[in-house]
Amino acid sequence: MKHLKLSAAALALLAGPALAQDTTVIGVSIPAATHGWAGGMNFHAQEAIDRLEEVYPELDFVLATASDPAKQVSDIEDMVATRGISALVVLPFESEPLTGPVAAVADQGVWVTVVDRGLSQEGIEDLYVAGDNPGFGRVSGEYMVDKMPDGGDIVVLRGIPTTIDNERVEGFEAAIEGSGINVLAMEHGNWNRDDSFTVMQDFLSKYPEIDAVWASDDDMAVGVLGAIEAAGRDDIQFVLGGAGMKEMIQRVSEGDTMVPADVTYPPSMIATAIELTAVGMTSPTPVSGQFIIGSVLVTQDNADDFYFPDSPF
Amino acid sequence: MKHLKLSAAALALLAGPALAQDTTVIGVSIPAATHGWAGGMNFHAQEAIDRLEEVYPELDFVLATASDPAKQVSDIEDMVATRGISALVVLPFESEPLTGPVAAVADQGVWVTVVDRGLSQEGIEDLYVAGDNPGFGRVSGEYMVDKMPDGGDIVVLRGIPTTIDNERVEGFEAAIEGSGINVLAMEHGNWNRDDSFTVMQDFLSKYPEIDAVWASDDDMAVGVLGAIEAAGRDDIQFVLGGAGMKEMIQRVSEGDTMVPADVTYPPSMIATAIELTAVGMTSPTPVSGQFIIGSVLVTQDNADDFYFPDSPF
Repeated sequence: MKHLKLSAAALALLAGPALAQDTTVIGVSIPAATHGWAGGMNFHAQEAIDRLEEVYPELDFVLATASDPAKQVSDIEDMVATRGISALVVLPFESEPLTGPVAAVADQGVWVTVVDRGLSQEGIEDLYVAGDNPGFGRVSGEYMVDKMPDGGDIVVLRGIPTTIDNERVEGFEAAIEGSGINVLAMEHGNWNRDDSFTVMQDFLSKYPEIDAVWASDDDMAVGVLGAIEAAGRDDIQFVLGGAGMKEMIQRVSEGDTMVPADVTYPPSMIATAIELTAVGMTSPTPVSGQFIIGSVLVTQDNADDFYFPDSPF
Repeated sequence: MKHLKLSAAALALLAGPALAQDTTVIGVSIPAATHGWAGGMNFHAQEAIDRLEEVYPELDFVLATASDPAKQVSDIEDMVATRGISALVVLPFESEPLTGPVAAVADQGVWVTVVDRGLSQEGIEDLYVAGDNPGFGRVSGEYMVDKMPDGGDIVVLRGIPTTIDNERVEGFEAAIEGSGINVLAMEHGNWNRDDSFTVMQDFLSKYPEIDAVWASDDDMAVGVLGAIEAAGRDDIQFVLGGAGMKEMIQRVSEGDTMVPADVTYPPSMIATAIELTAVGMTSPTPVSGQFIIGSVLVTQDNADDFYFPDSPF
């Protein structure tokens, strides 16, 4: 990694056409906005680039979005060949097909920052930025305990069966252990609205009295809320989703009692990754390592900080 | 945490006396420069503040250094009372006496970033920035294996008996496992030059043939190199220290065969912590969580990136 020794401010004073050749190029390669979270991630990547191009005149960014792994590999190879990138920020479409190509880029001396989805082989990237799945579950469970100090009966919707889902659920279970919260049932809603609508319909028919739902994801929460409304049930006090979807944050902000809180797993973590990479390129500040972005509880008090009206998510 | 919605660039355009009241103040509280690493940390804290005050005109910083925990507690209370800090970056002098006071600051809604030394209670800080002790040992061990492909006999100096030291040594042992590297002996040099001189003298008298030394720390390496020189021994091929001390990085840079490499545990991690806190105060980029700064191998190729001529360390 090449550290540029001039500070951003010093370069800003010098800035002019003569410096055009001295820019450092950072490539950003991410999946296209095929679903909600990815849409938010695309939005925050562009926002971060716009912001950082103003903060650091000596940096230039190239952003490419890919709809499949092959396109992402070719995007990255193109960034190296034609743009001479000094750093690559990549959120792999899939781990396996990207591992070899990203390793090849790192071998050429390009700084590599990997976001969210790890590569299949350890030690390739200089910096890894990811969400905190056990923490996501823990913060959700702690909120449930706070909200129901006298305990209660809840149902839980799980995501697609994966390590991510297991870590979240284990974190949740550890947090509610010893509280009076009783989990009536857990089923996989697969991070999908329609699946979750069906799962919740089933829960509603099985259990005449449910105090709350840990939907564990905002898309699943939308399905759950739809099923509750369709059934006309008024025993359920609230539904806790997660991720930080715009519509849910808005409901939290407005004081909707059915959606009193949310837990982040922010698509804006791409901005953190781009920011740290920019810092590494422009200063001697160490930015290699592993940054696990914490899951934060969003309530009416702080919801405005997590609401991005222009984001699709 | 209060997110300022105006970008740094937008604020720069607006900047003027009228904005003087709108600055966000970040407090930085660190131990005084009582030893080498702390001296480097003080240097990098000041450098980061100077740089960030130029990058973010809307931020103001207050730096305080303390020679004991009581002074640090009073520094922090003063920052809250008289400067109205929105965020605190703290490297605790000691964990126990700082835990309550820092928790009290967090309870008042101040963003808290803790660096290097954790507090005695989990969950107080918004962001934790620390070094990677197992990684420090692993990178050191991997270098030894690379450097001695046919194996060899080494001696190891350990630090003060602590969890940190155990993690480093375990990482090292795992990395050399199955290689031809044979550890003749391990003794505690307590991260101290004089102790390490004595330990190495003892090793030299016990073992007539030693191929290399893992001194595991630059201060200990200085003691080890002194003992080797005093004994006039020429069997030892190299000594590997660690931390990134200026004198050792310079020897690496100059191609000194006795000091061919170093492994970072950078005092400049304070700069990463201040930088991330500044980003959190000026943008919606998520910076809560846990950032473990990687230990990087420094060789003649990249030594210049890790050499800070003006730093005391």
